[in-house]
Amino acid sequence: MTADTSFDVAHLAHVELLTPTPAESRWFFEDLLAMRVVAEEGDAVYLRTWDEYQLYTIKLTASDAAGVGHTSFRASSPQALERRVAAIEAAGLGVGWTDGDVGCGPTYEFTDPDGHAMGIFYEAERYEAGDDDRPALKNQASRFPGRGVNARRLDHINYLAKDVEANGAFLRDALGMRESERIRLDTGRFAAWWFHFSLKSYDVVYSDDWTKHGNRLHHIAFAPDTREDILKAADIFLENGIHIESGPHKHAINQTFFLYVWEPGGNRIEFANAGARLLLDPDQPVVEWTEAERRKGQAWGMKTIETFHTHGTPVVETPGH
Amino acid sequence: MTADTSFDVAHLAHVELLTPTPAESRWFFEDLLAMRVVAEEGDAVYLRTWDEYQLYTIKLTASDAAGVGHTSFRASSPQALERRVAAIEAAGLGVGWTDGDVGCGPTYEFTDPDGHAMGIFYEAERYEAGDDDRPALKNQASRFPGRGVNARRLDHINYLAKDVEANGAFLRDALGMRESERIRLDTGRFAAWWFHFSLKSYDVVYSDDWTKHGNRLHHIAFAPDTREDILKAADIFLENGIHIESGPHKHAINQTFFLYVWEPGGNRIEFANAGARLLLDPDQPVVEWTEAERRKGQAWGMKTIETFHTHGTPVVETPGH
Amino acid sequence: MTADTSFDVAHLAHVELLTPTPAESRWFFEDLLAMRVVAEEGDAVYLRTWDEYQLYTIKLTASDAAGVGHTSFRASSPQALERRVAAIEAAGLGVGWTDGDVGCGPTYEFTDPDGHAMGIFYEAERYEAGDDDRPALKNQASRFPGRGVNARRLDHINYLAKDVEANGAFLRDALGMRESERIRLDTGRFAAWWFHFSLKSYDVVYSDDWTKHGNRLHHIAFAPDTREDILKAADIFLENGIHIESGPHKHAINQTFFLYVWEPGGNRIEFANAGARLLLDPDQPVVEWTEAERRKGQAWGMKTIETFHTHGTPVVETPGH
Amino acid sequence: MTADTSFDVAHLAHVELLTPTPAESRWFFEDLLAMRVVAEEGDAVYLRTWDEYQLYTIKLTASDAAGVGHTSFRASSPQALERRVAAIEAAGLGVGWTDGDVGCGPTYEFTDPDGHAMGIFYEAERYEAGDDDRPALKNQASRFPGRGVNARRLDHINYLAKDVEANGAFLRDALGMRESERIRLDTGRFAAWWFHFSLKSYDVVYSDDWTKHGNRLHHIAFAPDTREDILKAADIFLENGIHIESGPHKHAINQTFFLYVWEPGGNRIEFANAGARLLLDPDQPVVEWTEAERRKGQAWGMKTIETFHTHGTPVVETPGH
Repeated sequence: MTADTSFDVAHLAHVELLTPTPAESRWFFEDLLAMRVVAEEGDAVYLRTWDEYQLYTIKLTASDAAGVGHTSFRASSPQALERRVAAIEAAGLGVGWTDGDVGCGPTYEFTDPDGHAMGIFYEAERYEAGDDDRPALKNQASRFPGRGVNARRLDHINYLAKDVEANGAFLRDALGMRESERIRLDTGRFAAWWFHFSLKSYDVVYSDDWTKHGNRLHHIAFAPDTREDILKAADIFLENGIHIESGPHKHAINQTFFLYVWEPGGNRIEFANAGARLLLDPDQPVVEWTEAERRKGQAWGMKTIETFHTHGTPVVETPGH
Repeated sequence: MTADTSFDVAHLAHVELLTPTPAESRWFFEDLLAMRVVAEEGDAVYLRTWDEYQLYTIKLTASDAAGVGHTSFRASSPQALERRVAAIEAAGLGVGWTDGDVGCGPTYEFTDPDGHAMGIFYEAERYEAGDDDRPALKNQASRFPGRGVNARRLDHINYLAKDVEANGAFLRDALGMRESERIRLDTGRFAAWWFHFSLKSYDVVYSDDWTKHGNRLHHIAFAPDTREDILKAADIFLENGIHIESGPHKHAINQTFFLYVWEPGGNRIEFANAGARLLLDPDQPVVEWTEAERRKGQAWGMKTIETFHTHGTPVVETPGH
Repeated sequence: MTADTSFDVAHLAHVELLTPTPAESRWFFEDLLAMRVVAEEGDAVYLRTWDEYQLYTIKLTASDAAGVGHTSFRASSPQALERRVAAIEAAGLGVGWTDGDVGCGPTYEFTDPDGHAMGIFYEAERYEAGDDDRPALKNQASRFPGRGVNARRLDHINYLAKDVEANGAFLRDALGMRESERIRLDTGRFAAWWFHFSLKSYDVVYSDDWTKHGNRLHHIAFAPDTREDILKAADIFLENGIHIESGPHKHAINQTFFLYVWEPGGNRIEFANAGARLLLDPDQPVVEWTEAERRKGQAWGMKTIETFHTHGTPVVETPGH
Repeated sequence: MTADTSFDVAHLAHVELLTPTPAESRWFFEDLLAMRVVAEEGDAVYLRTWDEYQLYTIKLTASDAAGVGHTSFRASSPQALERRVAAIEAAGLGVGWTDGDVGCGPTYEFTDPDGHAMGIFYEAERYEAGDDDRPALKNQASRFPGRGVNARRLDHINYLAKDVEANGAFLRDALGMRESERIRLDTGRFAAWWFHFSLKSYDVVYSDDWTKHGNRLHHIAFAPDTREDILKAADIFLENGIHIESGPHKHAINQTFFLYVWEPGGNRIEFANAGARLLLDPDQPVVEWTEAERRKGQAWGMKTIETFHTHGTPVVETPGH
């Protein structure tokens, strides 16, 4: 892979979350995160953050169990899309073209080795704010809601996978992603592997699925402007009875300031602030952490919470846990 | 230009500032901004911010007058460098290859139509922290200084130019930059034009040089993590007798939270926080502001300070000002 | 006055604001400031901030013109109330006892020399949160709303007065207030005089009323937790078409971080953050600023906005303005 | 006790910390907290925070073991001092008058039942900034250092005591303090008891000394302006190898945002931000937490760290720990 294809994917575009409690999950995203419903189709609700240039950010679909449904990526150009489709087909994990979901043009569907459903497209409908959400400044997609957590934009997704290396290598080659950091256990296997598009420090992460179930989610993350936004979010979640799993604190890995909560359907949601951190170096060496280093906990010494290694969606019963 | 070459330049690499008061300017960058001197050569001092992966960030050169000396850009790959050199040569503004300044490989030198000296290179020496600036977390270039303004990384440069359109069009084509925003006066001319690499909302700006002198600087900017960093910086500049020209406040254009000061040599220095704002859309439409919109002032209504349109470096006497 | 009576008044208790646009003003306080309506009586609405231990904070009364109606103060004890009433009566400005407004016990009414209506009481009804605003933490008066500006508590009031010295001296003696800061013009007269109860740096201010009209208001202020709260408030006011008059910036006097807006009725409202600043010294010397010092503007150099010296409520036409 | 004497003590004045590693402890306070040495006497160094109106804040004394030496309180007036001395003498814990330590007038010495040495005085020398620490704004005690953690002012002290109730009751009556919050164990005993002067939510705390050793310290705290200051402090302590024990996080009790570290001598130091929280109500009801409520952990759910209940200074070996 040459550096020239490492910009073929512009960004993580949409995530479909599955929820067994659609009304409560909708309340979480719509009322607490101040996201806006832009479409409803069948069992699914499409919601957007205020800084989303696309039509929507999250598709929330009623389901028997929590988890991730479909993830999509936007290519940087029609040529980039062609190159990515060719790479996916070469890997033998292509599914085929569809007309695309709400607001998306033709989409090439595929899966990662772990079975996560994915799609890539180039043509995208841009959101046009209406009278009730027109922003004061014209260089903004829609009005700042001034409610709840005011989710700004999607930041990244962290999948659980039976085989971190196989999935990471596939997505790196299929999408032209670059590695930023990884944890290598004493066994030599990766416990988690971080990948990024362009200047962001990470966009997609694979973490070891201790259940070996397949097709599971560790979490998705939204990016707030400041660490203060995250502290305020913690107060709002506290007042609204949302389970705060961990944080606010600062990750050692990628140095993100974080807060993890569980939305009512059970999916883990992170709020992650990277400050001014950007990976400007086009040849940025990957940072590898050992098992011993991981044991030191987060940046300021807080031990990583046990449920990080026992809770994923869908929830799977594992002997001994 | 296809989207495929819009990632040919990775980032703004180094800026050389000229100063008629080298000792005082060095004190500003070294003591107040907590930058580290990594080399001294002749009349020049090379200083780095703590998050700089390269050897240095700013070259400070003693001179008769303040201003900008040389600006360099890092290409994303050897192939990207070749493409950019070809584009520059085609525009007839190439100067030729040099061995490169401290820490830089072979560099192709050129100028913009206004006469600003520029260079582009690919090979870069990476900084290795020593015993006295080794960071606690290994994914960080060097230790957080915990002093003064703690300048993190260079963010952008804003040049004054006799002809904004001509210079902007040249740099857009030469470097594969994309436009983000611009101000169009009632005359139809651009008062200022913002360009960006990759996901950042801007990296290079051209502003109208009312003196028509040529080769002048409006300002360079550093990127702090938070808006609180900028408020703290204002206190530090106040205590140290540095001229605070404007801010802290929020720009309407690109919505950056800002503070402008003049370093002792007279060059305008900005601290600019973009929050979580990224230009993810590979086809982001340019945002154009009218002269009437510009008159409204900054985002929260503060009028733009008069010296923004009367002070640049080198300082040039203009009749009627 | 001995130091022993300087704690006789516990705090500024309630402010009644008059508004010619009651519906729009109510929207400002209820929707944008996230205050809660706890009572309505005739033309008046009683609203509380979330951290208010009393029943209410602001009484909003429909009126022909904007301005301040009635201000009340809570005494520290029954004995302190008696001492204050005696002092007010000795000054000849007492009006007499009433049963007290909503949530207040017997109240002694009086006016300052400028004609501002005031009252002092000791017995106060404490707010009991209901099922829909019960806080997660029991040491909090009611639930953090997580909406708009989330006004926390009243901070201070700044009156316009025809004679700053006479009014300041009266209130100092009547309420046992202590001076913190003042501006003395070259004429020897005070342009403004800051007074405080207990540890707060100011609670009541008198500013010169250039119109010599009498009984006017410069502004009231709310205290947010952080400067970030104030920056966020500015965005919310921007999105909602509220006139932002000045700020965010930092006052030189008392060093408060501030934002001034005009509520739809025309009254000036400040959001003021003092950080960890407390006047711990029981003999704190008063800080006096000269006219020349005032001309330097605010702490970080922003010039004081002209409307600070031309706008008060009720609005009064003055020749030459 | 009537409310009239509840303002007899203005504030916690000075704390003497004992350290077995005087050079390293001095580095912590002088270099990392940016405190200024104003006097040295024998084995003791006197250090001030930048916002301290008195001569000094902390006295650091070389000793065989860490711990707290002497705590002093400043009375609000000469009459208040007399009343407090009478109350202390009535309790039988008075020691007698001294001339006072550096910068303090005549001081009445006493101990609490647990044996902590204390003094109360009224006359205090005010700090006069010199040429090298004169602030830009005249209403500030000395220049903002712009280094390290920039400790602003002392906030509170938390003593370990063999008998929380006896010590709390003594200090409440001796100093005229008011209760703010307390934890009552299922046994009916208090695990900790919070007291405050004036509007601050707490100034002195007694926590159960599980060792029953006597005369020990849990921690002292400094008050920064913002929560961001505390996040930045955590980075600075991380880079400097200081043991971060717990936080940043938010206490449920009194809702303080906190960070706990151990200075090199072993004493626990907190940085505590209360936001705009003030106890304005002169009859504020005490908030009592049960053992079950305490088990829920801190405000956002983090479990209280085990060493909170095993580490105090001097360090005392306890069987079973």
